[in-house]
Amino acid sequence: MTTIGIIGGGQLGRMMALAGHNLGLHFRCLEPGADSPMGQVAQQITGDYDDTEALTQLALGSDVITYEFENVPVAAAQHLAQIVPIYPPPLALEISQDRWHEKRCFQQLNIPAPAFARVNGADDLEEGIVTVGGLPAVLKTRRFGYDGKGQWVLRSQADVIAALADLHKHEVTTGFILEGFVAFQRELSILAVRGTTGELAFYPLVENQHRAGILRLSRAPAQRAPQALAEDYAQRVLTHLNYVGVLAIEFFEQDGQLIANEMAPRVHNSGHWTQDGAATSQFENHVRAIIGLPLGVTNVRGYAAMVNLIGSTPAPEKILAIPDAHLHLYGKSPRPGRKLGHVNIVAPDPATLEGRIAAVQALIDA
Amino acid sequence: MTTIGIIGGGQLGRMMALAGHNLGLHFRCLEPGADSPMGQVAQQITGDYDDTEALTQLALGSDVITYEFENVPVAAAQHLAQIVPIYPPPLALEISQDRWHEKRCFQQLNIPAPAFARVNGADDLEEGIVTVGGLPAVLKTRRFGYDGKGQWVLRSQADVIAALADLHKHEVTTGFILEGFVAFQRELSILAVRGTTGELAFYPLVENQHRAGILRLSRAPAQRAPQALAEDYAQRVLTHLNYVGVLAIEFFEQDGQLIANEMAPRVHNSGHWTQDGAATSQFENHVRAIIGLPLGVTNVRGYAAMVNLIGSTPAPEKILAIPDAHLHLYGKSPRPGRKLGHVNIVAPDPATLEGRIAAVQALIDA
Repeated sequence: MTTIGIIGGGQLGRMMALAGHNLGLHFRCLEPGADSPMGQVAQQITGDYDDTEALTQLALGSDVITYEFENVPVAAAQHLAQIVPIYPPPLALEISQDRWHEKRCFQQLNIPAPAFARVNGADDLEEGIVTVGGLPAVLKTRRFGYDGKGQWVLRSQADVIAALADLHKHEVTTGFILEGFVAFQRELSILAVRGTTGELAFYPLVENQHRAGILRLSRAPAQRAPQALAEDYAQRVLTHLNYVGVLAIEFFEQDGQLIANEMAPRVHNSGHWTQDGAATSQFENHVRAIIGLPLGVTNVRGYAAMVNLIGSTPAPEKILAIPDAHLHLYGKSPRPGRKLGHVNIVAPDPATLEGRIAAVQALIDA
Repeated sequence: MTTIGIIGGGQLGRMMALAGHNLGLHFRCLEPGADSPMGQVAQQITGDYDDTEALTQLALGSDVITYEFENVPVAAAQHLAQIVPIYPPPLALEISQDRWHEKRCFQQLNIPAPAFARVNGADDLEEGIVTVGGLPAVLKTRRFGYDGKGQWVLRSQADVIAALADLHKHEVTTGFILEGFVAFQRELSILAVRGTTGELAFYPLVENQHRAGILRLSRAPAQRAPQALAEDYAQRVLTHLNYVGVLAIEFFEQDGQLIANEMAPRVHNSGHWTQDGAATSQFENHVRAIIGLPLGVTNVRGYAAMVNLIGSTPAPEKILAIPDAHLHLYGKSPRPGRKLGHVNIVAPDPATLEGRIAAVQALIDA
């Protein structure tokens, strides 16, 4: 009876548990909040992510530990690693928690990335702008940014002045990174998986649309996409980190080239379509990977898409009246900007898919 | 927050809960046994199926009640129905619990069924044999038979004498039914769904192989099968019973004709392939039906099969090394003859499917 411990009790943990229950596995999570999405479908240890006693309790009752968000304290991961295997490896956490380390990692592996410069504070900003080749550029906190938070797009000197004022207000002790602006045609992401034996699997590139910094829509497979190139880049990261589990890398596509934007050492929102649109979901493949099972095939069943439900959810009966639309709700109460669920859509051809996406979006915007 | 109460905590309840959790639903079961398959992934009220207090507790905490086995006491179902909707309707339980009522129902709806005769005891047997057109014939208990238990195949006068001796030993107060033997070419089953609004959905006919009275293998869709005829028969039953939920009907196929063998007012083992091989699983469609949501499309994603894991389970890593093989374990401890799990297999063409079925079977027989 294998038990998987998960740091974090959100929707990603919930969906891992639902996928893994089918394999006869048991799940428990460490999560400070009551009535968490994952706690509703598996055991929960209620405690903070840096609570050593709770972490030890999680580890002692688990055969393997994983996590569902990348801001897990590295010290916590290292503590757990002394008791029980933890995948993906804590090194992947360290790198992806810090945009500067992340960019350095891409650079080291010869994976194209935007020009970047470390900015420790207001004093470095002007020099950073020169380093990245001038404006426009994007200033980001090195740590704890997500869904577009902690970012300033600098298009003009006025933006720079406003950002400087903002920087003085912020007490970000770990500093900033300035990135050259990439005039990309679209955003793509790849979900890659590596098993404990080094076995690899890749999902097809996904095309993503964000609004206000939050992912709204993914389409898979992305049409006319440089799949081999993306797999090559992903494989470099997986091998370099001796990685185990699912890894997501987000790219800007510019004139057929892929420019790595960021990576997430976990299952990823842009892979949710795999629950209904792929032979094996990213959640099942992550679970298979970390417990040493062979990876499942990743082929797409037709054409697939995922639409996020943010802030509120349309009436389920309206969503489910759309053919091959699959509703996934996370058991969370509504709140503006909160990811409450998603709808996966499958279709036999791109035109039918577009019609169904439009039908779902009409319900959301209604 | 909709909560579904399920009478029974076995694998069928477990798989309903896993499907329904994705829709954001909550589940609780009434089940006498500890550590039940469903209790591992949802709430459990521990109590007997005829424990009025426990039934009331189940009903008061649920928005709708369903069941996962057909031997639910009808009195219990009727008690629950006074408090909260229960689907499928208790009438479907009454009919499917008694092979004689079941055959009468088929007869009444002009659905071909084997010749049959009521046999109350040893005295009626000879007359029954005449009624069904002579030997061979099959004697069955009217109630509580499953997986081939409580059945005697009578091929010769010696079998009749042996059965008569057996009948004297059995204290079956509800009697027997004698059925004419059908020299069928294959066994097919249809899974049909009806929603609260009368909406209908049908899965393609499945071809089933039994051994020692237990389902071993299902293939979907059954090739060259009389789909329209099966849907017509299923629709008659659904409409007649004002049915809501998934209904399974097992047929003998003889020279292109369908002869109804039995029905089950619930999700069914021959529909497990739908979890990985159909656009919407039978479990999700049952849940959608009973809470009044639109039904999901039922088309097959390529060619699919299901192999039951009975008594013991092969090493998961061997099963999952087979492409597009999906393991479903129920969290039960091994015991001879016990259904512990199943493997769903999907393939792009029948030949590939057969190769993968053979690979799974080789692991089971090893």
